[in-house]
Amino acid sequence: MGNITIKKLALELNLSTATVSRALRDSHEISFETKQKVLALAKKHNFEPNPSASNLRSHKSKTIAVIVPEIANNFFSQAINGIEEVARKLGYHVLIYQTHENSETEIAFTRKLLNGRVDGILISVASETNDNQHFEDIIGQLPLVFFDRVYEDIEAVKITTDDYESTYEATQHLIACNCKKIAYLAALNNLSTGKKRIAGYLDALRDNHIPIDEALILYSDNGEEENHKRIKKLLMDEKPDGIIASIEELALPVYYACKDLHLEIPNDVKIISFSNLKTAPLLNPSLTTITQPAFEIGKEAANILFKILNKKDVDTKEIIVLKSMLIKRESTAC
Amino acid sequence: MGNITIKKLALELNLSTATVSRALRDSHEISFETKQKVLALAKKHNFEPNPSASNLRSHKSKTIAVIVPEIANNFFSQAINGIEEVARKLGYHVLIYQTHENSETEIAFTRKLLNGRVDGILISVASETNDNQHFEDIIGQLPLVFFDRVYEDIEAVKITTDDYESTYEATQHLIACNCKKIAYLAALNNLSTGKKRIAGYLDALRDNHIPIDEALILYSDNGEEENHKRIKKLLMDEKPDGIIASIEELALPVYYACKDLHLEIPNDVKIISFSNLKTAPLLNPSLTTITQPAFEIGKEAANILFKILNKKDVDTKEIIVLKSMLIKRESTAC
Repeated sequence: MGNITIKKLALELNLSTATVSRALRDSHEISFETKQKVLALAKKHNFEPNPSASNLRSHKSKTIAVIVPEIANNFFSQAINGIEEVARKLGYHVLIYQTHENSETEIAFTRKLLNGRVDGILISVASETNDNQHFEDIIGQLPLVFFDRVYEDIEAVKITTDDYESTYEATQHLIACNCKKIAYLAALNNLSTGKKRIAGYLDALRDNHIPIDEALILYSDNGEEENHKRIKKLLMDEKPDGIIASIEELALPVYYACKDLHLEIPNDVKIISFSNLKTAPLLNPSLTTITQPAFEIGKEAANILFKILNKKDVDTKEIIVLKSMLIKRESTAC
Repeated sequence: MGNITIKKLALELNLSTATVSRALRDSHEISFETKQKVLALAKKHNFEPNPSASNLRSHKSKTIAVIVPEIANNFFSQAINGIEEVARKLGYHVLIYQTHENSETEIAFTRKLLNGRVDGILISVASETNDNQHFEDIIGQLPLVFFDRVYEDIEAVKITTDDYESTYEATQHLIACNCKKIAYLAALNNLSTGKKRIAGYLDALRDNHIPIDEALILYSDNGEEENHKRIKKLLMDEKPDGIIASIEELALPVYYACKDLHLEIPNDVKIISFSNLKTAPLLNPSLTTITQPAFEIGKEAANILFKILNKKDVDTKEIIVLKSMLIKRESTAC
């Protein structure tokens, strides 16, 4: 059942490929009327879904794929452990793929996985991804569940954390500690995850009548050294008294930049970071973190995927939001 | 070409399965005489290697597997990055498997991989593994390269670091800082990696005429909480003035145990750990590490594997040893 042909049908009917694919599989999510339309056109074009191919694609490999940006990031390694716990109990193998935040790599992986190598995919989107075609191509072909970094336009279950509330609370915490100039180290700007995180920061400032200063917002670009340099410049030029790092990779460069400039954390500048770093409590000073329930997110995502694989009723528009925790430590002591 | 049949031939000829398999493939590593013997017996039993099966197994998946104990360990995530750099350039995909130090899981993975899913395997052995049958089964069927944690009896290329010299130097460093009671947190005791590490420690003590005290040697058992408890007990009962942790997972419990007991690092007790922790320089106090060239080990291992895949001449008995670095920081200041 070629994807190209489904696309043709979809185009002609002005429907999504996912809808056409589901209609052909007689999915309960598609209305009777739509199914009739799709089947009529399929018949007209002599198009019959290949049952052996679709059979091969379902449930046969006893393997699922997890696609993540970086396994060295503690959030992802913990989430993978959660996924593996569920998979192991069901006798499934887990293949891990790293995109290193590269969109091309992500596209290549998803293409390759459509060959029947796996029964389903769990994905946390690469930060560079700003096109959703490769996700559209999967829908209807292979069960797909997003976790943490989700692509909103795609109709698939999404497991996230309360990104907006987390940065809102973190900003409030810095304001309560008397910070007046709070910098924000932005990341994942293409993704709803990143957009929600920065929105929480901006709204907390507004609600506290603190003017928003664009110069205090730094958009990271994934190079370790470059981030270090730019954070150092931000500290020198803007002299923020508080910093929120929206991803773990941006927290350590702040520590190094402060060392370089002989700035003392938390006296000169306070810092909070999204992070699942195991060493956060042992850093000098210990780091205040927004800690995501990484292991639980992985478990939840895997549970949903296996529900879909076992043909249980799953609302593919569902968005499940788990709560992160603000853990206050010395880096924001006041 | 069933593995069972090769085993039968091997048993009858009193040869290893690897030798028989290589003889059947007309490998240059096997003597003419042995080949004659193997082929004669194979003919007698009407045993002919299945060419399509062996073809399927060679070079077709454009995928290699990496089996490691834990991706959350920085050494392994960096080694995987090195492997991926090489694989990406050659258009290969990398599948990552985690054993979580469990031997059963490792055996299940290696079995599954013999199905033609991958063209070759890179492995760092699980600490619980003390049987080599599953590695023997791979040899001759699929190219296999060991890295870091190697299984010595198996005839396959091995990439390690200078484990003996590293702990010898670390012990010398503590002795030079006037430590008299140096504890050793042992791990990987089944593997040559672990054996070499502890040998370096013991020899350095002997060479400095420091009596060896078994009470100062702690054999870890992979449970985080249990390690913490036992290290705390060691600190209370034996009062060591120096500690060498043979794996990264044992370093952080020392920090926590010292906190619990109000012991100051490095004044009360100094610590060195094998570790590729990115936060080692930022810990309180910063951690002296034996840092392995993880990325390079991964690159080297992948390069050797691709040489084998491309039928280049590789000495399968080769052991490549890369150098680790002792990076002195505050935790051993004197």
